[in-house]
Amino acid sequence: MKEHSATAAPSPETAFPVSQPFDFRKHGHAMVDWIADYLENLERLPVKPDVAPGWVRAQLPPSPPEHGEPWAAIVADVDRIIVPGIVHWQHPGFLAYFPANAGGPSVLGELLSAGLGVQGMLWSTSPACTELETHVLDWLAEMLGLPHAFLSSSAGGGVIQDTASSATLCALVAARERATGFAGTAAGLQGPGPTLVAYASTEAHSSIEKDVRIAGLGAGNLRLVPVLADRSLDPAALRAMMDEDSAAGRVPFFVVAAVGTTGTHAVDPVPAIADACAAHGAWLHVDAAHLGIAALCPEFRGIHAGIDRADSYCTNPHKWMLVNFDCDAFWVRDRATLVRALSVLPEYLRNHATESGAVIDYRDWQVPLGRRFRALKLWFTIRHHGTEGLRALVRHHVSLAARLRHRIAADPALELTCPTPWSLVCFRARAGDDATDAILCRVNQSGRAFLSHTRVDGRLVARVSVGAPTVAERHVDALWDLIRGAR
Amino acid sequence: MKEHSATAAPSPETAFPVSQPFDFRKHGHAMVDWIADYLENLERLPVKPDVAPGWVRAQLPPSPPEHGEPWAAIVADVDRIIVPGIVHWQHPGFLAYFPANAGGPSVLGELLSAGLGVQGMLWSTSPACTELETHVLDWLAEMLGLPHAFLSSSAGGGVIQDTASSATLCALVAARERATGFAGTAAGLQGPGPTLVAYASTEAHSSIEKDVRIAGLGAGNLRLVPVLADRSLDPAALRAMMDEDSAAGRVPFFVVAAVGTTGTHAVDPVPAIADACAAHGAWLHVDAAHLGIAALCPEFRGIHAGIDRADSYCTNPHKWMLVNFDCDAFWVRDRATLVRALSVLPEYLRNHATESGAVIDYRDWQVPLGRRFRALKLWFTIRHHGTEGLRALVRHHVSLAARLRHRIAADPALELTCPTPWSLVCFRARAGDDATDAILCRVNQSGRAFLSHTRVDGRLVARVSVGAPTVAERHVDALWDLIRGAR
Repeated sequence: MKEHSATAAPSPETAFPVSQPFDFRKHGHAMVDWIADYLENLERLPVKPDVAPGWVRAQLPPSPPEHGEPWAAIVADVDRIIVPGIVHWQHPGFLAYFPANAGGPSVLGELLSAGLGVQGMLWSTSPACTELETHVLDWLAEMLGLPHAFLSSSAGGGVIQDTASSATLCALVAARERATGFAGTAAGLQGPGPTLVAYASTEAHSSIEKDVRIAGLGAGNLRLVPVLADRSLDPAALRAMMDEDSAAGRVPFFVVAAVGTTGTHAVDPVPAIADACAAHGAWLHVDAAHLGIAALCPEFRGIHAGIDRADSYCTNPHKWMLVNFDCDAFWVRDRATLVRALSVLPEYLRNHATESGAVIDYRDWQVPLGRRFRALKLWFTIRHHGTEGLRALVRHHVSLAARLRHRIAADPALELTCPTPWSLVCFRARAGDDATDAILCRVNQSGRAFLSHTRVDGRLVARVSVGAPTVAERHVDALWDLIRGAR
Repeated sequence: MKEHSATAAPSPETAFPVSQPFDFRKHGHAMVDWIADYLENLERLPVKPDVAPGWVRAQLPPSPPEHGEPWAAIVADVDRIIVPGIVHWQHPGFLAYFPANAGGPSVLGELLSAGLGVQGMLWSTSPACTELETHVLDWLAEMLGLPHAFLSSSAGGGVIQDTASSATLCALVAARERATGFAGTAAGLQGPGPTLVAYASTEAHSSIEKDVRIAGLGAGNLRLVPVLADRSLDPAALRAMMDEDSAAGRVPFFVVAAVGTTGTHAVDPVPAIADACAAHGAWLHVDAAHLGIAALCPEFRGIHAGIDRADSYCTNPHKWMLVNFDCDAFWVRDRATLVRALSVLPEYLRNHATESGAVIDYRDWQVPLGRRFRALKLWFTIRHHGTEGLRALVRHHVSLAARLRHRIAADPALELTCPTPWSLVCFRARAGDDATDAILCRVNQSGRAFLSHTRVDGRLVARVSVGAPTVAERHVDALWDLIRGAR
């Protein structure tokens, strides 16, 4: 390899010898039509596939093609292998987990982002990629009624992350560095110093433990705080745990408050948690991954009580705002701390704009270096629907959930579990887990709807999470018929 | 909030009141045409925008729209605000950093992924999303001649990450957990135990220090190993540093070998590094983010000498294989260690397929929980071009770089810096940094080409990174005219 052709004679004129020219226009139109047809006919497909592990791979040749294949053969395989092998997350009967609804304007924003193919790691590598993102996150903060401290005109600001998991990791690392005087650039957690302790409720998202492990803190230093009857974090228990750790010489440095837990949509008492954080100088991160979007509607804005005292906050337009995955919106109160925790500047990325201090370089706000132009899809979605249109979507889903909740509440064989007034309905059969499981099996085997589950006090609970773009009353009514028939 | 409408009467029949119906088919066709036109006319645009910080934001209204806007107004703003505000990474004159080339089949794969809108966090949440990814990464391993140990039929396997930064973080965390007996689930780095030390050359990518900091190890525990004259890691220095750390009671646990450094494409001596790792039981991660793709061609496969002894490896189809960002391909030799380091399983994600042990759940192979269907674009690209077509692309870029290298070598005012035989040409003016800077300024202000820079032994070096999809001899020749005119 040390012998090379660095000074060899130039080759004769050649262009990339494309053995397979690609008619982007023609195949692009056809792909748009394919997607339009798919979405229009989605309801005729079973929500979940019926495939055994290995079925998909068995349809594929063991080795890659040496020569290019006709485009028609590739698209035919999408129909033959992919469609029967996926869960249809955009299906109106998809009521599992949380939604990942993808609207048309957003899908075209993703297409445009891919077509432009720009990198937004630095302001200077595509100014519009950075500035549109900053601007649209200010818009979104206004739409959600977030505190002024999160706006880019203050000391804070917003950034798009792939997921709430990554947003929480960034918050955690910034908090860790703040608590240790930025030890990350020195000995990290391997140096002397008291043990750092993080807190979240027993109902908080699994990504918090994962992030705590990744950041080197150890899951044993994540305290899982007990919850009250409604599954929200017990602030008295949090305070006691923080005081106990502090008295033992440990440092309570990070608390995650969930606004809408994954299990049951429980809302932690952020004001009381903020008090506890203030007493110990801990970073308060609010994880409103799904439910935060409800704050588009003034009548639901109470979910955000207390977040004016949070150090960071995230919610996912890719869950409930018609923006296709991935698009987590993450805000911090003090961008300087986040940037200091995550910035490493090598020579090959130095540039005048960065050195001027007049620009944001979003690579310093996230784990990866590279980043694509995700603001386009958020911008397209907000502009096409307007805030009003997105509020209507939230209210529509909430109203459908209320419709189902009313029926379950009126049925003596069923009971609501930790009911909340938004888009998630949790219930179980009074007869016990076997009966609840029978309902889940019947619904999920019908192909017409797909529910997921959780456990509350050890008991199986069915979750109905309303959020598909085209879900309507008839789908909820059909689900109710399935539930009633199985109970 | 505790008072809610959980049992309120159902509302009258409503559907999501879409104030702005969206004609996906019509607007989708137009967006495909917009992208096709953009790519066809790209060469007429200056590669880099001429905008000051704040220009893009100044074009945007301060508040989000309350009501939806016409789609035509949105697309018009793409032309008015976005196009003049971005660096055109697909422009044939884009020769900065490393390329992020986006081919048509890949862009349509991204479109399809967005349109399907599925989540691949678990096998069960869309089996085809997982199985296609496993399969296509086995294909790609075969195409690149990677060791059998990385195939899914062995104890290893591949996964798509967003970037090499994230891949390295996953490797680092897995290595950290292996070295500490999986302390991440207990005290993490805050417990007793010797100090862990990581190693990479002074030329290795900045993401390694960032990852070391994120993982709590402390940048002070990353040893930057000196390089030889060709900027590759000095294996004797590495061995001496590892021995010294070990003698002092520290644990050398992780080494990154760069195959193609970002600055100059230097290739670290992986076999000698593997010897050093073996002596200390350290995890060997090979970062071939850009250059690894060259191994599609048998004549360049020497870059991979020794990787049969690596614990993990990554390369980026999103840099040099016509797959639009993001698509980093990451393989591990021992998937069980990676999964054990990153898996946290809450009740709401439990499912029969996971419990059977017969499936891969890729959420346990990465930082985030959610993941989109990125295998589609890789599959489309490989099938459309075939291995042969992708090899032709690599050879085309290498040949163009050789053409330029030949001219620079023959010019007495210029000198090649650490020349390599692939697609990156590094050079400087013999007259010194001011003269090199003058060349960079002239080229970058021309609008016809965009170069970035690095420093070697403290001296400014211009980088010409050939990799845009449509770059041809005439673009390299035009660049040469610019360089010659400024030297």
